[in-house]
Amino acid sequence: MKAHVWVMLKPTVLDPQGQTIQHALASLGYAQVKGVRQGKFFVLELNGLSREDAQKQVEKIAKDVLTNPVIEHFRYEIVE
Amino acid sequence: MKAHVWVMLKPTVLDPQGQTIQHALASLGYAQVKGVRQGKFFVLELNGLSREDAQKQVEKIAKDVLTNPVIEHFRYEIVE
Repeated sequence: MKAHVWVMLKPTVLDPQGQTIQHALASLGYAQVKGVRQGKFFVLELNGLSREDAQKQVEKIAKDVLTNPVIEHFRYEIVE
Repeated sequence: MKAHVWVMLKPTVLDPQGQTIQHALASLGYAQVKGVRQGKFFVLELNGLSREDAQKQVEKIAKDVLTNPVIEHFRYEIVE
């Protein structure tokens, strides 16, 4: 079973990496790009769990290990 | 209009960050997690483009700016 986890900076938190990319794109002529936010994406491979248990476990992992709750939020989905 | 871009290491490329996370999870008791791959996720905000033009432009940006084609591959989708 696979799980996808997205970890993004909260909307209120500045994203200097994203801003740098946006400025680089503007200087390359992509003026229509008005904003860039960069986040992290994780693919987890899970074995021997029911879909329900996988969901609980991935939520716990995302919350406790992959995300810094002060500045980031996450979402996840179980695939396959 | 918004676009999502995922940039991942190619499957043949080692992912030491992902491995580190997997080992950390194993030591925390998440033995069912058999693999972790970490990638990047971008949210682009685009203004004043048709869906078709946005698609072309995002594909070019993902290919030329966000991805290192030697070790990474990407996928994208136009949302909203």
